[in-house]
Amino acid sequence: MNEITKPAGKQASAAVNEQRLWQRHVDMAKFGATPKGGVNRQALSAEDIKARALFAEWVAKRGFELFVDEIGNLFVRRPGTDPNAAPVLSGSHMDSQPTGGRFDGIYGVLAAFEALEAIDDAGIKTKRPLEAAAWTNEEGARFAPGCMGSLVYTKPDRLQQMLQVKDAQGTVLKDALAATTAALPKAKKRAFATPVDCFIEAHIEQGPILEAEKKTIGVVTGIQGSRRFKIEVIGQDDHAGTTPRARRKDALSAAVHIVAGLEKLFHWDKEDVTRFTVGRFVVEPNAPSVVPGYVWFTIDFRDPRLEILDKLGDQVEGICQANARKCEVKVTQTNRTPPIGFKGLVADAVLAATQRLGYPHMHIFSGAGHDAQHLFNICPTGMIFVPCERGISHNEIENAAPADLAAGARVLADVMVDLANR
Amino acid sequence: MNEITKPAGKQASAAVNEQRLWQRHVDMAKFGATPKGGVNRQALSAEDIKARALFAEWVAKRGFELFVDEIGNLFVRRPGTDPNAAPVLSGSHMDSQPTGGRFDGIYGVLAAFEALEAIDDAGIKTKRPLEAAAWTNEEGARFAPGCMGSLVYTKPDRLQQMLQVKDAQGTVLKDALAATTAALPKAKKRAFATPVDCFIEAHIEQGPILEAEKKTIGVVTGIQGSRRFKIEVIGQDDHAGTTPRARRKDALSAAVHIVAGLEKLFHWDKEDVTRFTVGRFVVEPNAPSVVPGYVWFTIDFRDPRLEILDKLGDQVEGICQANARKCEVKVTQTNRTPPIGFKGLVADAVLAATQRLGYPHMHIFSGAGHDAQHLFNICPTGMIFVPCERGISHNEIENAAPADLAAGARVLADVMVDLANR
Repeated sequence: MNEITKPAGKQASAAVNEQRLWQRHVDMAKFGATPKGGVNRQALSAEDIKARALFAEWVAKRGFELFVDEIGNLFVRRPGTDPNAAPVLSGSHMDSQPTGGRFDGIYGVLAAFEALEAIDDAGIKTKRPLEAAAWTNEEGARFAPGCMGSLVYTKPDRLQQMLQVKDAQGTVLKDALAATTAALPKAKKRAFATPVDCFIEAHIEQGPILEAEKKTIGVVTGIQGSRRFKIEVIGQDDHAGTTPRARRKDALSAAVHIVAGLEKLFHWDKEDVTRFTVGRFVVEPNAPSVVPGYVWFTIDFRDPRLEILDKLGDQVEGICQANARKCEVKVTQTNRTPPIGFKGLVADAVLAATQRLGYPHMHIFSGAGHDAQHLFNICPTGMIFVPCERGISHNEIENAAPADLAAGARVLADVMVDLANR
Repeated sequence: MNEITKPAGKQASAAVNEQRLWQRHVDMAKFGATPKGGVNRQALSAEDIKARALFAEWVAKRGFELFVDEIGNLFVRRPGTDPNAAPVLSGSHMDSQPTGGRFDGIYGVLAAFEALEAIDDAGIKTKRPLEAAAWTNEEGARFAPGCMGSLVYTKPDRLQQMLQVKDAQGTVLKDALAATTAALPKAKKRAFATPVDCFIEAHIEQGPILEAEKKTIGVVTGIQGSRRFKIEVIGQDDHAGTTPRARRKDALSAAVHIVAGLEKLFHWDKEDVTRFTVGRFVVEPNAPSVVPGYVWFTIDFRDPRLEILDKLGDQVEGICQANARKCEVKVTQTNRTPPIGFKGLVADAVLAATQRLGYPHMHIFSGAGHDAQHLFNICPTGMIFVPCERGISHNEIENAAPADLAAGARVLADVMVDLANR
C-alpha cells in the first residue's frame, strides 16, 4: 500500500450523512423550481442569489469561514494544521440550464460541503486546509462562455473581458455580479492567485454508462475536447406574400440547409462518439409573414480525439459557405478546448478510496465539460462520477439516487483526507 | 359614359395636397422609428397608441368626428346629405411588422384622410357619408392572426376569441386594447353592425410589378389566397456533450429536415407564383449546450389558385410527419383564406377615375393579404395600388415616392365622391 491508500484512523466516509446530503438537494431545488420538477437557476439570477444565501447560512451555522472572489466564486474553508499549506479543494457549480435538473453542478458543491462536515463530525485533523468551492456560471446559458468562474480563477487576466459580457436582455455581467456578491456581505474577499494543492470535482455522470454497467462510482479519466462556433446568416427581410423565390435572400432557408450540411459532416462515425449540437437558433425579425433577414445559431462540437476536433471543426466554415445560397455567412469560433486526461495523484486517490469502500466502479471518460478542466491547468485534478437516471441531464427530469449521491460523497471525503494528509 | 364615370363639377383630386400627405407619413414614421429608417409599430403597442393619438389630433383639428369600436378600429366621418345612407369607407392599418416600413398600411389610412380633407377643401357635398378607417392589427406580428380588426368588424362573433389572444410576452390583447382605447377618450363608440356602402383600400404594392412596368396606379383585380400553419416538434432536452446521436430526440434537427422537405414541395413551379415562408421559428430551451427538446414554427403559404392551395396545403401534415425522425409533430392550420376577385362597382370606379386623371395604370393581382379581403364579405370592395421601391416591403428600407402616393390619393378622392354620389 502506498501512502495515500492507507486508511485513516477514523474514516471520514463513515460520517457522511445520506439524509442530510439529500435534504440539501431538496432545499436547493426550491430555488428556480420548474413545474416539471427541474430547476431554472441561471448564473447570477435572483434564484442563484437565493441559493448562495442559503449555502452561506449553512456554512455560518457550521462555523466554517466563507470567501468570495471577484468573479463570485465561493470557498468554504476548514483549516489544516499547517498554516502555510495550500488547500485541497473540491467543488462544482450552483447555476443550472434554463430547463436544468436538480443535481447537475449543485451535487458537487453539496458533496464537498458534506465531506467537510463529515470530516469535522469525525474529528479528523488534516495537515492541509480543506475547501469546498462553488464556481460561478459553469453552464454559460445566461452569460457565455460557461466555466467562467473556474476560467477566471485560473486565468485572472480574463476577468475584465468577462465582466463586460451581456445576457440576452442586455444585462451586463458586472452588474449582475455586484448584486450577487452584495447579498453575501459576510463573505471575505479572496484573491485569484491563492494557490490550490489539488482539485477534485464530484458530479453526476450526465450520461448512461454507469447505470448501464451497474457501477456506483466512475473514476474519471479525462474530459473530451470541444469547439464552439457562432454562425450568422445575413439575408434580407421581405414580404412573405409578394416576394418571388427568385428575389428572396431567405436567411432561415439558408440556415436550414447549412445545418443539414453540417449534420452530414458530423454524423460520420458509426461508433457515435462525435457530438454535434445546434442548441441555440435565433431568427429575426421572427414574424410569420416576413421572410427572415437574419439568423444566428450555435454549434457545440465535442470529441475526445484531438485529431477529429481539428479535422471536422476546420470544415465548418466551408460547409456554411457552400450552403449559404444568396445569403452572406459569418463563422466565428467562440471556444476551443482540447481534450484532457486525468492521471496520477488525484485519480489514484479516487480509485484507492473507492476500492477500500468496496463500491462497484469503472474508469470513465467525461462527455460534458466541467470546471475541473480549468483547474487542471494549475494543479493536480480529478473527478468522481455517480450515476444519473437514464443518463438524462440538462433536462428538468434529471434524476439521481440518494444512495449513489452519498456513495460519491463518501469517496470524496476519504480522498480529501488522504490528499490533505499525504 | 355611365353614372360613375361623369366628372364632378369640382374635382376632389385637384385639392389633394402632396406635401401635406407626405409630411403626415414623415410624422407617423417617428412612432417606432428604427435606426435603419423603418418602423417598429406593432399593434396596440406604446408606439401604436402614440400614432393613434396624433391621428385623433389631426381629425379633431379638421372638425371631423372620430369613432372607435370594440376591437379598436378607428373611423373618421364626414357626413353626407342623406342622413340614412351607409358610408363609403376607405382605409387600411397603422400597425407595422417588427422591422417594417414607413408606408405599409399607414399610407391607406393617410390617403383616406387626405381624400376626406381634399373633398372638404373642395367644398364637395356627397349624398352618402365618407369615412376613413384605421383597422386594428393588420400585421398580426404581435398578436395573431393578422387583419384582426377587419375580421372582427365583419364577423363580430369572433370578438371574444380575439380578446383572449396573447403576445409572446404573455400580454393579453384585451388589456393592450383597453390601454389603447383609454388613450382616445373623445372617440365615440361604434357598433360592429354599422352598415358599409362600399369599401376601397389604397396600399403600396409591396411587390415589384408596377415599378417594373412604369405604372403609377394598379387597379387591383383580387387577392391571392393563403393557408397558415403552426408546426410543433416535440423532442427531448438532453446534454449536448454526453448524449449519443442514437439516444437523442433533437427537435431542431427534425425541424430542419421538415423545413427542407416542405421546401421541396412548395418550390415546385417554374413560374415562381407559389409563396412559401417559414417566418417564425422558435427553439426551446435555446441554450448552446442543450439538445433542443421543442421547436415551433409557422408556415405562410399563398397562391392565387384555389386548387393549388388545396393540393399543396393538404400535403403539409404528411411531410411534417415523414421528416419527424424520433420526435412527435403536431400540425395546426391556423388560417385558411380562399383567393378573392374584385369586380364591378368599386374596381370600375377606380379604373374610370384613373383613366380620367390620365395616370399610367394596369390591372394587378395582390400578393399580400389586406383588410379589404374581410370587407369583401360584407360590401362591394376594391383596392388601389401605388408603386414601392424595388418591391421591397416588410423591411425597414421600404420606400415610395411622394408623387406616387399623391396620385393614389387623387384617384381615391375622386372614386369616393363618385361612389358616394352615385
